[in-house]
Amino acid sequence: MSGARGANQQHGAGELVIGLDGDDTLWHSETLFTVTHERFAAMLADHADDVDQRLLAVEKRNLELFGYGAKAFTLSMIETALEVTNGDLPGSHVQAILDMGKALLRHPVELLEGVREALEALAAHRLVLVTKGDLFHKEAKVAGSGLGELFDRVEIVSEKDEPTYRRLLDGLGVAPDRFLMVGNSLRSDVVPVVGIGARAVHVPYVVEWAHEAVAEEDLPTGGWWRLDSLKALPDLVAELGP
Amino acid sequence: MSGARGANQQHGAGELVIGLDGDDTLWHSETLFTVTHERFAAMLADHADDVDQRLLAVEKRNLELFGYGAKAFTLSMIETALEVTNGDLPGSHVQAILDMGKALLRHPVELLEGVREALEALAAHRLVLVTKGDLFHKEAKVAGSGLGELFDRVEIVSEKDEPTYRRLLDGLGVAPDRFLMVGNSLRSDVVPVVGIGARAVHVPYVVEWAHEAVAEEDLPTGGWWRLDSLKALPDLVAELGP
Repeated sequence: MSGARGANQQHGAGELVIGLDGDDTLWHSETLFTVTHERFAAMLADHADDVDQRLLAVEKRNLELFGYGAKAFTLSMIETALEVTNGDLPGSHVQAILDMGKALLRHPVELLEGVREALEALAAHRLVLVTKGDLFHKEAKVAGSGLGELFDRVEIVSEKDEPTYRRLLDGLGVAPDRFLMVGNSLRSDVVPVVGIGARAVHVPYVVEWAHEAVAEEDLPTGGWWRLDSLKALPDLVAELGP
Repeated sequence: MSGARGANQQHGAGELVIGLDGDDTLWHSETLFTVTHERFAAMLADHADDVDQRLLAVEKRNLELFGYGAKAFTLSMIETALEVTNGDLPGSHVQAILDMGKALLRHPVELLEGVREALEALAAHRLVLVTKGDLFHKEAKVAGSGLGELFDRVEIVSEKDEPTYRRLLDGLGVAPDRFLMVGNSLRSDVVPVVGIGARAVHVPYVVEWAHEAVAEEDLPTGGWWRLDSLKALPDLVAELGP
């Protein structure tokens, strides 16, 4: 999807295009899922003491079929609840899970501290939101974030791997050495980006979804930086030069 | 998302860009949902005789929160089942609904008759797949259709309204009078397209989702055509001229 500022805008060949992840980079997301995980495990604590691990296993198993997002997560919660209760799941629990899922979808977007200021400070560059997940919910989040007008484009993708980034850069008409991706996930925002010869900035979030973890030895040895907060991004970009 | 042939390809100013809908235009979809509706209603027939209408009402109510697609539909089935059983829903029914949802997601893509031949006959034009729904599942369908390489671009959108089509044409760099949209839905593929000054072709499918119906008096009086089959599209496009 093209964003607010118009996809046909002309840019110089030497410009830097900055890709920004959404969930847990610009706004809070995983904390909401974590709270829901905890409420879900508490609800089923009488049936099993490893509810959380089993939910993670079901999520992982369903990833190829469901993809990412709150609806996929809700369906995986229902499947896990059936599993841990051996199919003897009270309707009230099913209702509670549906309600938890809807609460995730309805939750207002809460920006991380300093995000708007950082993006405004980077306005001279071409900013592209590159986010993974549920198209419908993501568009609602972008709208709810109030950041839409700061982005040149919004790209909602189903997976963040090397082919996706190659296609993205191709569509943007930007060479890998002019692209900088910024996000909280080593697996999605750093490793495949460095893998195609572009650069990346890792801005860790307070919690990380287990699925996104990368072993230290699998990290690229160069081509990426780590910042404590997006607030430090304008200074890093200035240091990287034009 | 940009498709296989590369979004930066140059095209002449006078060329025709043909947008094609996916579900029920290129491949079967609604028949699968109809079969699932019937199985769902049969499962709950002891509890209510208006299960189907109630499911449609729940789907409509959830549209703003869930959007379109098989995961949204599955969650709405569970919600409807809780409603018609007054919360006394056996776990086996919940499992059956989850299984129906997964079957929808896993179902192989079945092209409508003559689709590949029609698209191949139109290969001189710039073809863009414009489809609504669940990003993850839609990408899987495009891949499963084997048609991906025939499209210049694949645009998966959350809603097909006038702003979406305006943004799409803007992103493609095409004027409304050079755009022709082809699809089975009057509401999504014809009315908003004619509304922005572009042209449309309605190719009705054997069944229509109730949500997509448009009253005869709300149809535009010109700017669109109706064909019985996509097979007739190349001839119509030839008649419309360059």
